[in-house]
Order: sequence, then structure tokens, then C-alpha cells
Amino acid sequence: MDLPRQVIIREVGPRDGFQSLKTFFSTTDKLDVIEAIYRAGVTQIETTSFVSPRAIPQLKDAAEVMAGVSRQGVIHAAMVPNMEGAEKALAAGADQLVVVISATEAHNRANVRRGIDASLADLDGIFFLARQQLVPVVGAIAVAFGCPYQGDVPSADVFDIANAYLEKGAVSVILADTTGMATPIRVTNLAGEFQRRFSEPELIFHFHNNRGIAMANLLAALTVGVIRFDTALGGIGGCPYVPQASGNLATEDVVFMLEDMGVYTGIDLSKIIQAARLLEKRLGYTLPGQVMKSGPRDPEKAA
Amino acid sequence: MDLPRQVIIREVGPRDGFQSLKTFFSTTDKLDVIEAIYRAGVTQIETTSFVSPRAIPQLKDAAEVMAGVSRQGVIHAAMVPNMEGAEKALAAGADQLVVVISATEAHNRANVRRGIDASLADLDGIFFLARQQLVPVVGAIAVAFGCPYQGDVPSADVFDIANAYLEKGAVSVILADTTGMATPIRVTNLAGEFQRRFSEPELIFHFHNNRGIAMANLLAALTVGVIRFDTALGGIGGCPYVPQASGNLATEDVVFMLEDMGVYTGIDLSKIIQAARLLEKRLGYTLPGQVMKSGPRDPEKAA
Repeated sequence: MDLPRQVIIREVGPRDGFQSLKTFFSTTDKLDVIEAIYRAGVTQIETTSFVSPRAIPQLKDAAEVMAGVSRQGVIHAAMVPNMEGAEKALAAGADQLVVVISATEAHNRANVRRGIDASLADLDGIFFLARQQLVPVVGAIAVAFGCPYQGDVPSADVFDIANAYLEKGAVSVILADTTGMATPIRVTNLAGEFQRRFSEPELIFHFHNNRGIAMANLLAALTVGVIRFDTALGGIGGCPYVPQASGNLATEDVVFMLEDMGVYTGIDLSKIIQAARLLEKRLGYTLPGQVMKSGPRDPEKAA
Repeated sequence: MDLPRQVIIREVGPRDGFQSLKTFFSTTDKLDVIEAIYRAGVTQIETTSFVSPRAIPQLKDAAEVMAGVSRQGVIHAAMVPNMEGAEKALAAGADQLVVVISATEAHNRANVRRGIDASLADLDGIFFLARQQLVPVVGAIAVAFGCPYQGDVPSADVFDIANAYLEKGAVSVILADTTGMATPIRVTNLAGEFQRRFSEPELIFHFHNNRGIAMANLLAALTVGVIRFDTALGGIGGCPYVPQASGNLATEDVVFMLEDMGVYTGIDLSKIIQAARLLEKRLGYTLPGQVMKSGPRDPEKAA
């Protein structure tokens, strides 16, 4: 099995997970969990999103969170849905902006209440603003592997948006399997097409586990040389009241698998397990992540 | 991605799952669920285990279950821990016997309260009895990828038992990751060693999901030509009160992934999802299987 020597994990739980919690997770809780993630050696965190507090009340403390995190040796990214969000994120000191557009019109309208063209038109201003402050922008593409409204998504639609991002200067492109519709063969096909079209930019995969395939998708991506992945502590994300229904890949499970296979992540397995257990304790309910329940392989460490 | 054209699924939920339920699952419930599995096109089922009713009260109705199942076009296997179990299974009309020995002394003692040598010594009688009735025997090896007591398991210990099975005439060998300690590289290594040592016999992998890696392990096995897998409806197995903690790979999730990648299983996806939902309804709590919650990719089918 031909595997890369190193993988770069982007921890997205503080954004993709916290945004969908049904009970308010305090700023202190958020900061404690982010600090635990940081102390485990994670160097890229999607820390929050600067969105309307009415749309996503869970993240109304985005600026306080960004002000409270440890900064040394870590990139704190902020998702921004529009110019107003970008301005706030930059003012709050985000190290990186993440913009998102869906690969289908139906999902983009459901997600940000406007069409793809309107989302694309907003990009120039965001990229200009970010460039002025020397802050890199990452372009995310939602429902890149399939759409709950439309079903299959032509890869041309995905690459039209990727092209727009890269023309404007995006440093990386995230292909997101927002509702867990990817399978390994779709992953290797889309990765291959991306690699043929764009040799330079970073490709990041973002897998949800709605259909139980996310870890297999990550393995498939590894075998074709993809080394950047979004994961979320404890497997949070999606609806918290449907156990395991739609979370992200659990960071600690991914670290466990990669470490066992000799792939370097720079993340300390026992510390990231501790962070996941802290998150579960603060939330007060069981999360989908598995390694935090079973422990690592070593019987002594597991005890 | 080089994938086989066909995969053979052994549904082990009625044995590996039902045996560990904490509330009694009635004979009628068992038979209804097995019938739903059968109607979905599953052709190999590990239907029950003929064990001491004191050790595993859940399976005290093993003979009634075996008497009540549909028989056309399907192999009903029965796990047997010893001679007495084998006699009962054969008397009840099992199509196949499954014997099990752990790859480590500590786990074998915990599992069947005797050493590996004692378990091996029992095999001659079981194989003799089965051969008299022209019933094939499958040899399973527990903790083949790691042991919760011992940690790493030398592959030589696994292959000593595999050798013993095959010398006695076993038709297949199951390498079981009993507590979810396998990772893809361990899977391809063990599969490769098996294939080099034994060209003829069938290799079956049995993965538990204690550490979230089971589906990636299955994918890894596929890429090296393994085409036989144990899976369990709804991802049952292990402790039912630790959600997702230690179940088998969910049959319907595996069928979903394989079908999407063009790998034939002979199993009808919507019917196996229906079977999983029936099981969840009869049990009255949420199971780890994902596709039954999210539905297939097709938005129309998902509705």
C-alpha cells in the first residue's frame, strides 16, 4: 500500500461542529476545547465562522473566540459567508479566510439563500480585502460529491467553482462531501481530475459520515496522493440528535489510523483523545468518535 | 482503483449481534429479521450459535431458529464452540459449521475458558462429525489483528491455527478483528501473507468498528483481491449500550458502498435497508448503521 509519509489535518470541529449544536456551548467551553486541540499539536484549525448571529446563534461569540485562542504555531481560519463576515473576521485577527459555494444551485440557495452567481460575484471583494491584509483565502465547494436535492453533481460544475477560486488567488480548494455521498471510487476520480487540471494548488478533502464510508474515502484519497483533510474532534458536525448520522470524520480516529500506518500527522494521539473526551464531557452526550471509547491499540495505554 | 467485480457477504448479525443483546430478542423477532435478510438476497448467514444456554441465554432458541428459517438458495451456518455444540447444530440442520479459536492464549481462555491446545484438540471430533454428514466447516480465528490483553499478535500465531484448520479440511478461514484493532496496512499485510501461504482456501475478513476504521479496512482488503466479508445488519455486535462502540461493519453500508462502485453483491440495497430498519424497530434503539438513516444517494429513493 503506497501511502504518503505525512498528512495535514485541518480541525474543523470548532466551526462545522459547534455551529450545529442544539444547546448553547459557552465561549469558555469553546476556548477550552480549542486549547486542548491546540495542545495536541494541531496546526490548522477552522476556529469559527463570522455569520449572522440570527442565522447561527451558536457562533455569535466568533470575535471573542478568535481573541481568546493561543496563536503560536497554528493557523486559525474563519469561515465567512460574505463581505460583512470577511470584514469581521479580518478585524478579529483570523489567520485565514474560508469561503464556501455549493456545487449545485439548489444547495447554494438552501445554504446561503442566493444563487451560485451571486456567491461568485461576492468573491472579488473578499479576496481584495484579504489580500490587503496578506491573509490567505481557501475556497470550499460544498456538495462536491453529490447533492441531497439534485443527486449526482457533474464534475464540470465543481471545477467551474474551483477555477474561479484559483483565478482569484485561493491557496487551497476544499472539496466537501457535505452530506456523505462520496464513495472511494468517486474520491479517486475527483482527486485525479483535480490533479490533472491543477498541478499547484492544495487539495483538501472534507468527508462526512452519513453513509458510513468516510474513513474508506480518506484511505482512497491517501492512495492517490491527497494529504490534506478536514476532520472534527469526536466526529461532531451535522445534527447532534441523530447519533452518528452526519458528523465529520473524527480527528482522533484519523490520527489513530494514520499513526498506526506510519503516516506522520504531528498530532499526539493520547492528547487528541483527551481533547475529544473533554468535548464529550462538556457536551454531556455520546459522540460518534470511536477511539476515545476503545483507546489506542496498546493495552497499557488503553487502560 | 482496482476492485473485484463481485463480493460475497456473510451476514453474521443473527449470531454475532443477537448473542450480545441485553434484552431477550424473541424467536419470532429473530426469524422475522433473518427472513428480511434472506429476502434481500443474502446467500450466506451465520444464523445462530449452539452454545450453553447458561453462557449465552440469548441463543437458547438456536434449534428453533434453525428450524424456522427459509432454506432455498442460502447457506445457514452455525457457530459451535465444542463437540456438543457441533452435534446439536448438525441435528438442527445447519448447512455449515463455524469453529473459533483465538490467536492468543489470553483471549481464548477469556472466550471459551480453555487454552488454544485444548481448542485445537477438539477440532478432530468436530470435523469428523461434520464430514460424516457432508457439512463443510469454516475455521475462524479471533483477535487475528491484535488482542485487548496482549496487544500485537504475531502473524505466525495466526497462521499456526489457520494451518491446523486447513489440514483438517476447513473450506474457509475467517480472520477476525474481534475488538477493532486492524488498520488498512495490517489488513493488506495479513491478506498478502495468507495468499502467499495458501493459494486455494477462501479467506474471509471479519471487521469490528471499535476504532472507526472498519470500512477503510474492508476497502484495503478489496484492493488486494479479498472478496469475502462478514458484516452484520445495522452494525450490531458488541455491547449494545455503547453506541457505535464495537459493532460489526453494517451490512447495508457495505452494500451501499460496493453497489456505488460497481461491485456486485447480489443483495438488494433497499431491501437490506428495510431489514435494518425492521431490526432497529424491533430492538427499540438506534443502531450504528448509517445508510438506513440517510438513505441511498438517489434523492427520490431517499425520500
